[in-house]
Amino acid sequence: MGFLTRIPDDSPFTLVNIPFGIFSTKDDSTPRPATAIGDFAVDLRALSKAGFFSDKSVIDALSQQTLNAFAALPAKTRTVAREEIISAAKDGKIPESSLYKLADVKMHLPVNVPDYTDFFCSLEHCQNCAPMMKAPIAENFFHAPSAYNGRASSVIPSPSIVRRPRGVFWTTAADGSREPTYGAEQHLDYELEMGTIVSMPVPYGETIKVDDAPDHIFGFVLLNDWSSRDLQVFEMPPLGPFNSKSFGTTISPWVITLDALKAFQTAPKHTTKRLEHLTYKDFAHGTHDIKLAVHLERDGKRHKIASSNLKYLYWTPYQQVTHHASANCGLRTGDLMGTGTLSGDGTDENGKKLELGCLFEATQHATQPIVLEGGGKLGYLEDNDVIILSAWCEDESGRKVLGFGDCKGKIVAPDAPLD
Amino acid sequence: MGFLTRIPDDSPFTLVNIPFGIFSTKDDSTPRPATAIGDFAVDLRALSKAGFFSDKSVIDALSQQTLNAFAALPAKTRTVAREEIISAAKDGKIPESSLYKLADVKMHLPVNVPDYTDFFCSLEHCQNCAPMMKAPIAENFFHAPSAYNGRASSVIPSPSIVRRPRGVFWTTAADGSREPTYGAEQHLDYELEMGTIVSMPVPYGETIKVDDAPDHIFGFVLLNDWSSRDLQVFEMPPLGPFNSKSFGTTISPWVITLDALKAFQTAPKHTTKRLEHLTYKDFAHGTHDIKLAVHLERDGKRHKIASSNLKYLYWTPYQQVTHHASANCGLRTGDLMGTGTLSGDGTDENGKKLELGCLFEATQHATQPIVLEGGGKLGYLEDNDVIILSAWCEDESGRKVLGFGDCKGKIVAPDAPLD
Repeated sequence: MGFLTRIPDDSPFTLVNIPFGIFSTKDDSTPRPATAIGDFAVDLRALSKAGFFSDKSVIDALSQQTLNAFAALPAKTRTVAREEIISAAKDGKIPESSLYKLADVKMHLPVNVPDYTDFFCSLEHCQNCAPMMKAPIAENFFHAPSAYNGRASSVIPSPSIVRRPRGVFWTTAADGSREPTYGAEQHLDYELEMGTIVSMPVPYGETIKVDDAPDHIFGFVLLNDWSSRDLQVFEMPPLGPFNSKSFGTTISPWVITLDALKAFQTAPKHTTKRLEHLTYKDFAHGTHDIKLAVHLERDGKRHKIASSNLKYLYWTPYQQVTHHASANCGLRTGDLMGTGTLSGDGTDENGKKLELGCLFEATQHATQPIVLEGGGKLGYLEDNDVIILSAWCEDESGRKVLGFGDCKGKIVAPDAPLD
Repeated sequence: MGFLTRIPDDSPFTLVNIPFGIFSTKDDSTPRPATAIGDFAVDLRALSKAGFFSDKSVIDALSQQTLNAFAALPAKTRTVAREEIISAAKDGKIPESSLYKLADVKMHLPVNVPDYTDFFCSLEHCQNCAPMMKAPIAENFFHAPSAYNGRASSVIPSPSIVRRPRGVFWTTAADGSREPTYGAEQHLDYELEMGTIVSMPVPYGETIKVDDAPDHIFGFVLLNDWSSRDLQVFEMPPLGPFNSKSFGTTISPWVITLDALKAFQTAPKHTTKRLEHLTYKDFAHGTHDIKLAVHLERDGKRHKIASSNLKYLYWTPYQQVTHHASANCGLRTGDLMGTGTLSGDGTDENGKKLELGCLFEATQHATQPIVLEGGGKLGYLEDNDVIILSAWCEDESGRKVLGFGDCKGKIVAPDAPLD
């Protein structure tokens, strides 16, 4: 059985997962495709060269330095390739020479991201933010997925180091009026999101049906939409977020495929009637039951600070992809779509809200800081704070069946080194 | 002297221009670099193979299918290459075999565009729009360049065919309330802009000084930011433009370099005090005097419908680039930045405003349509309307010294063919 007997019980990378990523190693700095099983990265380029895959297009795709070519293959071809990996692993045929300890490898972005978009689709997130913004939820929220174009250049893989950005924000002048200042962000936040990665492209000028949306999705990653609240308040009206969201977007490096997630399909939490082009027939399988958690590491201690679930979204990833393509922009393989902050309305035994996907919500803009176990308070992020997003799927007994691996990032001072 | 004796007097592509583009021909469909002189595209890959360039890095760059590698070369290297082309042309040494009639070639995007950003930096445009939007100009406008991330997948080269998009917008219900509808856009607009193309990249996590901004600019193109006003009204709050701006962004295919534009440097029109990081020393050369015009072609007739100038911008391209990089997002070679709609306050002899860079302004949202010579009215764009943006620089006597070539696009029905 080889290394498979060594898959730890708590590993996210079980044999029903088989995620795809891009890695490099000390002995070979060329980025190349891999999967993860247990504590190991499995070099798929090596497996491919050794004849593990039957399809010529798979062999070609696995010789590339990103997963774009692989993601662009027909879904059925990818499914077969994944099954070939699972079979080889189960049969103990994966050679030890293709294995690298995950702790020793460097992970890269899984795909070249041609365009990055960030949605805003959690009703609970909107409801929590609206009173603080002193503005009602925009009426459009309820009729189509809200989104803005993000910045692809600042999408980076976990684990990442993110410099506290500088920018223009409002400060209070001596006479009480507000004045613009250029300086380091003082209210630095994370946002708990997932990211959808596009597989089959949609040509410019074409649209898709919501029932066909899964055909255009390679899989999901975790996504931390780091946010500068001072810059955001300054720049939002009227064009939306810009520099406040483009100093770093950390994604988990392993793409969890729709194949792996098929067993965890479920109905969305919100069942309101939608416009016809956003209404899909198979509502019961309209999204996925993916559990989420956020941890803070500060001073060497780890604190759980939030939890959530993908299924809470008011607009699911399938509806997001469909709406995105609905006005002819075209989608390209590797396009990344953030789901938007994933909040819910779950509470603990004392009625305290737990499912708050950013600190703006969870601390009410630092007016009600989170009290950390062992002392200390969390308002916004301090330099050297580390945020870790995690996600997993459970079976009916509550056992973790597969996971996404960490999406981890550390905030550093504006001029601190990036490596 | 060869073909140079045949440069027509009204050609935009004079010997002081030497723009860069990517073209293909009937006999060779491989996209490759070119310049334009008079009525001809000059195959730069062919010149390069024939030994016209002294620098190895130029030869490598001109063998590529986009101009990204060429744009990424040091500014001095590009300057020398341009001078080598000019010398060869003046000396009559450019072989006829490298010449193709412009009318016969196909132009492609000059660069692969990693990220596209659109600014909103014309004070006059804001002033004209604000009363119609029933909202004051956002205070942030005066302290930093306003912008939103655009969609790179829908940036297309002139001449382009653009389908009227469908999307969600508000209509009036029987009881007078507004209700969301999915359908074809009814208020389709153009926007007169220029586009800045990035040369030397800025690494993720780094920033630049405004005085160094020219080092990061390869050159300029014309840019038509086609806009769906119905979709825009629906989706703007609170995240800004999204699908309303991503059904097509047409750019002129020839990049006019900073070298060519050096003689047309000028001080910006607006001289208000700025935050220090956006204030540059050489204010007198802070922007360029580039004249702009917009024509409509309808039913075979051509109508001039607007004029403007790059120098009117409240925030210049140098300030835009600097602000963009100021929060660590990184800039990549080929990044495209739209200047935002270029309006002014010029009037004709009757006091009628001329410098209105979109139909929303020029027709007051179609309530005051433009009366076309020979009959007909222009409110918003109809199917088969063609919009042509043009730009040029003049010497002191008012003679056109160089031009940008057309940025041309035609609107077609939602399901009309794209070729």
